[in-house]
Amino acid sequence: MLKVEHIGIAVRSLSVSIPLFEKLLNTPCYKTEEVAAEGVTTAFFQQGETKIELLESVKAGSAVAKFLDKKGEGVHHIAFEVADIHAEIERLRAEGFEVINAEPRVGADNKLVCFLHPKSTNGVLIELTQSR
Amino acid sequence: MLKVEHIGIAVRSLSVSIPLFEKLLNTPCYKTEEVAAEGVTTAFFQQGETKIELLESVKAGSAVAKFLDKKGEGVHHIAFEVADIHAEIERLRAEGFEVINAEPRVGADNKLVCFLHPKSTNGVLIELTQSR
Repeated sequence: MLKVEHIGIAVRSLSVSIPLFEKLLNTPCYKTEEVAAEGVTTAFFQQGETKIELLESVKAGSAVAKFLDKKGEGVHHIAFEVADIHAEIERLRAEGFEVINAEPRVGADNKLVCFLHPKSTNGVLIELTQSR
Repeated sequence: MLKVEHIGIAVRSLSVSIPLFEKLLNTPCYKTEEVAAEGVTTAFFQQGETKIELLESVKAGSAVAKFLDKKGEGVHHIAFEVADIHAEIERLRAEGFEVINAEPRVGADNKLVCFLHPKSTNGVLIELTQSR
């Protein structure tokens, strides 16, 4: 793994949370993007080499909607940038981690992404992400 | 804020979670440190410019023990490095954020630290940290 590419935070309303995080981080939101496949709209802030990604559900029953119902607003996942996502998936499966989608899919920022189940990672939803 | 200095993850047992995160991150734990004032022992891993900090409670009733009882294992806080923690506390209070300890204290890594209450930050416990 190369770095923390982003930290995903589930929020109920981007219209409330974008100005809140602009004040908190003292930096503007530089992009919003809908990721239809995940049923979310995302908003990005840069902090050093890492992005803060706010996630608002725009589809009933999305993973983020379920997270909000169960846990409320808060950190949803940590994404690590990897050089070769297929090799990293193989390595992690061999180490006993549970990969949610063994075939990477296209996520926000047009990156290949894959998730590890939090039950194998101390309750932390881990995303692997590779630039295309 | 300059960068994501570390991400704190509450775990029940470092003896279980250190080898788990060494496999996950594919990098060795480079340091463990007890922070008596917080009632925790910490373990650190480097990922790019950010550290992953595992937190095990070593004192009944510590903030991490309460978090584990309420929420289970998972992301506990995000720490941002700042250049001038006193100036940043002033700025954030003026913006309406609730600062838990307005007088910075010494945390892990011998840094000055201060926390913002998660009720003012969408459920995310935010730490500010400044090198001394």
